[in-house]
Amino acid sequence: MLPLDWIKDISRSTPSKIVLLVLDGLGGLPHPQTGRTELETANTPNLDRLAKEGICGLVDTVNPGVTPGSAPGHLALFGYDPLKFTVGRGVLEALGIDFELEERDVAARGNFCTMDNSGLITDRRAGRISSQRCAELSQLLDGLKIDDVDILVSPVKGHRFVAVFRGEGLGDELSDSDPQREGMSPKDVVPLSAGAAKTAHVANEFIARARTILADHQPTNMVLLRGFARYPSFPQMSEVFGVKPAAIAAYPMYRGLAKVVGMEVLATGVTIDEEFATLTQHYDSYDFFFIHVKETDTAGEDGNFERKARVIEEVDAALPRLTALNPDVIIVTADHSTPALLKGHSWHPVPFLLRSDWCRPDQVTEFSERACGSGSLGRFRGTHIMPLALANALKLGKFGA
Amino acid sequence: MLPLDWIKDISRSTPSKIVLLVLDGLGGLPHPQTGRTELETANTPNLDRLAKEGICGLVDTVNPGVTPGSAPGHLALFGYDPLKFTVGRGVLEALGIDFELEERDVAARGNFCTMDNSGLITDRRAGRISSQRCAELSQLLDGLKIDDVDILVSPVKGHRFVAVFRGEGLGDELSDSDPQREGMSPKDVVPLSAGAAKTAHVANEFIARARTILADHQPTNMVLLRGFARYPSFPQMSEVFGVKPAAIAAYPMYRGLAKVVGMEVLATGVTIDEEFATLTQHYDSYDFFFIHVKETDTAGEDGNFERKARVIEEVDAALPRLTALNPDVIIVTADHSTPALLKGHSWHPVPFLLRSDWCRPDQVTEFSERACGSGSLGRFRGTHIMPLALANALKLGKFGA
Repeated sequence: MLPLDWIKDISRSTPSKIVLLVLDGLGGLPHPQTGRTELETANTPNLDRLAKEGICGLVDTVNPGVTPGSAPGHLALFGYDPLKFTVGRGVLEALGIDFELEERDVAARGNFCTMDNSGLITDRRAGRISSQRCAELSQLLDGLKIDDVDILVSPVKGHRFVAVFRGEGLGDELSDSDPQREGMSPKDVVPLSAGAAKTAHVANEFIARARTILADHQPTNMVLLRGFARYPSFPQMSEVFGVKPAAIAAYPMYRGLAKVVGMEVLATGVTIDEEFATLTQHYDSYDFFFIHVKETDTAGEDGNFERKARVIEEVDAALPRLTALNPDVIIVTADHSTPALLKGHSWHPVPFLLRSDWCRPDQVTEFSERACGSGSLGRFRGTHIMPLALANALKLGKFGA
Repeated sequence: MLPLDWIKDISRSTPSKIVLLVLDGLGGLPHPQTGRTELETANTPNLDRLAKEGICGLVDTVNPGVTPGSAPGHLALFGYDPLKFTVGRGVLEALGIDFELEERDVAARGNFCTMDNSGLITDRRAGRISSQRCAELSQLLDGLKIDDVDILVSPVKGHRFVAVFRGEGLGDELSDSDPQREGMSPKDVVPLSAGAAKTAHVANEFIARARTILADHQPTNMVLLRGFARYPSFPQMSEVFGVKPAAIAAYPMYRGLAKVVGMEVLATGVTIDEEFATLTQHYDSYDFFFIHVKETDTAGEDGNFERKARVIEEVDAALPRLTALNPDVIIVTADHSTPALLKGHSWHPVPFLLRSDWCRPDQVTEFSERACGSGSLGRFRGTHIMPLALANALKLGKFGA
């Protein structure tokens, strides 16, 4: 059976509503002085009440021990096995800047880098130039045309840019030009299937021209390309799960991932209050809502334990706006942990709560990593979240007779 | 590796005995007035003692969020991954009425339905006719012969019947004639592989003749067929697990499923006392017993919370007859939950206990959904039950050197 086919056959459309609230990077580690994680430090009466009324567990969004990137973490939450459904690096970069990819496009992640006179790369990130400088350099390369292919170059951040190849007859099965190490020459882009021969030729020609154009722009005198990819054609949530899904997310990457699985992306402000206002405004028009809160992750990445705890408290304080709508199913969880102590994504499982009228509550009475560890859901995989959400919304029929 | 091959290589035959007691639909939901499930409401000193002496957990027989039908639920308990081992709808209907399928047969589930003058279906269930009427109509169609194929038609219940095509050179890769919606014409049965061409021809001819025969029998003037299937050839429990298995089940469907995996089906009365008497009588002749109690599920389906609790108490009261035999491994669990509040199967995980001399008891002291939620088995998948049963009966060797 193909992945997701089993659930496609039993999912059914109903008026019941599901809200999936994702606090990005929510999971943390205990503060050395208090022994309490960010979530345990925050005062969260509303989340605790949901945990008490609902069921809890700990989720490995990808697999135990795996530190998920944003894409696999979210795809898992959306019900798509991230080991089977992958989004290429080039596409992720494009999604991250709200670049509108067309179906025929091939996108690559680019680095401005430094090359010495003998053609060896001395700095893959060109001294981590400013985003401002990246924008200026990108403009120099943007709009080239090679054969009948347009090359659109957009700055991302620091030394990073996106190169989009737009034309007919392109393919994305290509090797990288980025050797991933200093002291080596950039590699030729090699087609890995017959359908990618034209693209390889155009990509190599683009790199050659970029080298010429950038020759006088030390230390950014060369580009490296990797992660050539086409926009993925995933089965859409509406077909697979029978829902009419909407995304409320302030950051481009998450809006982009939501679009990949077929969510309608709603215009929204960035604060949690604005996001909940967007939810209220559109509540009648959809039956599945993904709400993304970025600030928990940002504070974690910054190593700011106190701020992360404060953001969690802000979400908790705003939560009555969500619960007032009385969704049939409320889920609060994360795409991965971002402990302030590690200043980055981590492999630690994320706390999870689900409240519905039909959830058979367990004995957990607060929302924290530790309490969720004794919830009746146990420790489970991210891809099981969607089936649990749909079941609790009475949107799934019987499997087999 | 093929499914089950890994365990086939390490399972070994021993005199130790395993009893798998399945209380169909045992799992429940808390009563709104008491906050206690059916199982938590019932007084179950004997089950509680087993839970105390044994290990407990919560089982998703198929997967979290998935509501199992009877077939996938039981196949999982028997150690067969229900996503890989499927029994066709037609075969299930035949099993459910104790119809003896031959290897060459192709069985289809049939509906008597109502068609209007223009050939469109106006009621897929013909107003849900009585089982009595179904039997009369089935008799009109039973025993037709088309080419060299005999068609055996048997009533099931209400509008449902089984059509069995018996002859040489038949195949079951066929599309349904049932369009699954009213307002449409019945579809032609189309062969989906070369080996099913003859069967498609015979099935379409049967439908045409049925239409003629039923023309004057409004509102049951047409038939719909779906789920064409052959009797599955699953690896048998004796080969895979090295056991000599017997089934004690009063209802045809469960006897049929037991037969599919190679159990010997023992003649038995329907009450729990009669079933335990059957166990005692045959105790020396087999080393694996599946005992099926249907009434928990029936009470749940009827929405009768009190009766379901009472049935559980009856089982508990009879349990000393089972424990007196002192089996090496006793397992008590369910194929799925059937909460009286939902009046049907549900996705909620089922309570599970296993007692053996070698089980390393946990801290659970009573048998209930909530208590099992903190058992040392955690929350686990149904297909792990058989390996656990065999291991605790010391019937499994080391995996790998």
